[in-house]
Amino acid sequence: METPARPGTDVGHELRTALDGLDLVEDPDVLSSLAHDDGEWAEVGRPLGALRARSSEEVGRAVRACAELGVPVVTRGAGTGLSGGANATENCLLLDLSRMNRILEIDAENLRAIVQPGVINDELTKELAEHGLWYPPDPASSPWSTLGGNAATNAGGLCCLKYGVTRDYVLGMRAVMGGPAGPYGTEVRLGRATAKGVAGYDLAGLLVGSEGTLGVITELTLRLRPLPRENPRTVVGAFGSLVEAGRAVALCTGRGLRPAALELLDRSCMRAVEDWKHLGIEPDTAALLLARVDTPGDAGTAEATELATAFTDGGAAWTEQSTDATEAEALFAARRLAYPALERLGPVLTEDVCVPQSAVPDMLARVEEIGERHQARIATIAHAGDGNLHPLLLAPPDDEQAKRAAQAAFEDILSAALELGGTVTGEHGVGLLKREGMERELGPEVCAVQDAVKQALDPLNLFNPTKVVDPAQA
Amino acid sequence: METPARPGTDVGHELRTALDGLDLVEDPDVLSSLAHDDGEWAEVGRPLGALRARSSEEVGRAVRACAELGVPVVTRGAGTGLSGGANATENCLLLDLSRMNRILEIDAENLRAIVQPGVINDELTKELAEHGLWYPPDPASSPWSTLGGNAATNAGGLCCLKYGVTRDYVLGMRAVMGGPAGPYGTEVRLGRATAKGVAGYDLAGLLVGSEGTLGVITELTLRLRPLPRENPRTVVGAFGSLVEAGRAVALCTGRGLRPAALELLDRSCMRAVEDWKHLGIEPDTAALLLARVDTPGDAGTAEATELATAFTDGGAAWTEQSTDATEAEALFAARRLAYPALERLGPVLTEDVCVPQSAVPDMLARVEEIGERHQARIATIAHAGDGNLHPLLLAPPDDEQAKRAAQAAFEDILSAALELGGTVTGEHGVGLLKREGMERELGPEVCAVQDAVKQALDPLNLFNPTKVVDPAQA
Repeated sequence: METPARPGTDVGHELRTALDGLDLVEDPDVLSSLAHDDGEWAEVGRPLGALRARSSEEVGRAVRACAELGVPVVTRGAGTGLSGGANATENCLLLDLSRMNRILEIDAENLRAIVQPGVINDELTKELAEHGLWYPPDPASSPWSTLGGNAATNAGGLCCLKYGVTRDYVLGMRAVMGGPAGPYGTEVRLGRATAKGVAGYDLAGLLVGSEGTLGVITELTLRLRPLPRENPRTVVGAFGSLVEAGRAVALCTGRGLRPAALELLDRSCMRAVEDWKHLGIEPDTAALLLARVDTPGDAGTAEATELATAFTDGGAAWTEQSTDATEAEALFAARRLAYPALERLGPVLTEDVCVPQSAVPDMLARVEEIGERHQARIATIAHAGDGNLHPLLLAPPDDEQAKRAAQAAFEDILSAALELGGTVTGEHGVGLLKREGMERELGPEVCAVQDAVKQALDPLNLFNPTKVVDPAQA
Repeated sequence: METPARPGTDVGHELRTALDGLDLVEDPDVLSSLAHDDGEWAEVGRPLGALRARSSEEVGRAVRACAELGVPVVTRGAGTGLSGGANATENCLLLDLSRMNRILEIDAENLRAIVQPGVINDELTKELAEHGLWYPPDPASSPWSTLGGNAATNAGGLCCLKYGVTRDYVLGMRAVMGGPAGPYGTEVRLGRATAKGVAGYDLAGLLVGSEGTLGVITELTLRLRPLPRENPRTVVGAFGSLVEAGRAVALCTGRGLRPAALELLDRSCMRAVEDWKHLGIEPDTAALLLARVDTPGDAGTAEATELATAFTDGGAAWTEQSTDATEAEALFAARRLAYPALERLGPVLTEDVCVPQSAVPDMLARVEEIGERHQARIATIAHAGDGNLHPLLLAPPDDEQAKRAAQAAFEDILSAALELGGTVTGEHGVGLLKREGMERELGPEVCAVQDAVKQALDPLNLFNPTKVVDPAQA
């Protein structure tokens, strides 16, 4: 694979000339804040500059210029990623799409919306609610993360247990690509605008989750659902151990229960949130399970009761059902705030393994064992119903020993997940941090197929090189 | 792109030698019945032979031999496809997977099943029901079609309105591929076994719907759901015109109603079924809408009432709600049998356009106008709630004029769908019949991207050449 040529002349100067009139950031302080996402300890290169693009035309012009000058293009939204996927590579152009933040169309008749990639997830949710509509994918980063970033990483979230992940809601997109699509900078329309469609390969689905390595998403056509009409019910269960909570999760799946969310928080997570936000949560147990039930009517009542029974059968010390929106919101807010609450205390290395639901109790036991063995401090949150666990590895700032312990535990957790038939990343993506784990998971043959796709669609290796795939190394 | 080399020696003989001991069919009568699917008037080549493979090892061996001999590989399941995607190309090996028909694992704890590609859709449904489980994708061909074929075409069906299409249920697969994966005949595992996973590009999703052009699916890991516990409700509406029925469909979507199925049948379809099966359906109106509601409890009752109201507001002459399973089954059986009932009467060219739901009334009006203009006989069935219409173009056997009229109407219907923001194929696939339509829909840039994917993953152009993509022509 070709890598972008690096002419001997002052590339920064040529790039500045090529992007004349556009909002190119070169201030070192601003650049360094834009040069990375939230993936702790992932490598960060020095960018040549950051373009705050305002239109797909500007994106096209920038990509064209970068292709000519051999400057890698690293696209970013809000930078809330957790795998280093949006980190600058050396001498790249950062393409910041956060200003392409317009909702272009809300089509209630056809349950779809057209948005620019920089629209923040929660902003769309708010706007849609006024039309009685709903966009389900709700990563915990939804108050900050962009829909373009959500699509690039195929973001999950709380309610994907029942409603699916981002890929299930991306009907179509516009993307600036290169190679076979035409000269680098060419914008194409992938996917469709209809509920169904099988005209050709699922290229829109391929770009979803490709983490900016195949092109730049400049517009999204999203599938919507009607807004649920009733307040959801919440079912809480408190457990004396993580493993008991895991057992309750496995029971729920095995009994065919499918709540809108089934989340797990351990004591460290709840305490960190409470110390920061004072929501009035006083956990005196090792773990909480939080279920949200949005099935309407009497069937929803029955579902909530069955969940509570499964919690009890799993070993819950107590369970509680509620339709009180305030109380439920506080609990789910605690779930959402767990990551930033812990991040306040120092670097957090975020695991993102996903295992079959029946293996959740085993996986939680292994996480505890791994933490003890490495003397690593681990707080665990989980989209437990999906088998998607986020053990958070904590290290006080500048504590090299704690950092090494965290990194060793991180690798062991990946191995444990693979042994249990799981994946190294359930929803955060590969970026830089999971490259090696992905290779272990997929094996050389499948990685070679991925490399071949990358080479075919981005022959210059211009888009987010070294992330996910790295055919240059192959 | 390379095309398979054709040595001057007797390839048939060499293939026979290479596949010695396997079940290779060379009888001309059997071969000719295996050489095509149900895509009317699509080109059919003469195969060298058909291998009835019994294992993925046999598939691997056959693909390896074909790569060495330059013999194209055309994979087929039950041959119920409607676009010619499984038709033989000249001098190909037909790879018949219908004998790889074992259900390998049903995992109730993790809501998944592992199956061989030749398992028939309804066979899995029956087996799962005994475990309280459900595999939703239900193409009308489900009594005959195979899960491998369903995956290869990303088959839709009746209940995908609420529950999604085949791609939404394929978690992972094994596939025999070539090129970057290793020597042709190498089996790889794509996708995952967990509810979520984003380790690398969505290659399993890419193979779903690729119609056998990128490799041979030899095993599928499918996502399941719990079997609904209550009998569904049925809502029927009878309309004086197709366009009124279409208006009712648009109202349902616009009001956020999401039944488990929302089907349309016109009078010709119902009459053909009744003449054949004597189900006791006596339509005295131009079109029926059939909705199935599986929301449990009182919310389901409310949903059925809202659907009936939308039917009335759309112009229904009468509506009826029922929880009588026998009556409902007869109506849905009529829907499922419409295609074979019409096929009894002569060749049927099946359209498969999908438009935004708000455009359904317009599209139905255009279909009527096109039928009149070309004097083509058209019977229409539709997954109306998805905007997916199947105008069936009928021609008596050996009536050349009727055939030409049908073909002209076929093209005009595609154009009309594209003008209304739709797609040329909602669920049947491109195969041979929609190649040109797909090119019109996607444009040369996107087709070039598809060609590049094909070339990268199948550099010999061995797998189902000339279907969907045709880089050799580019």
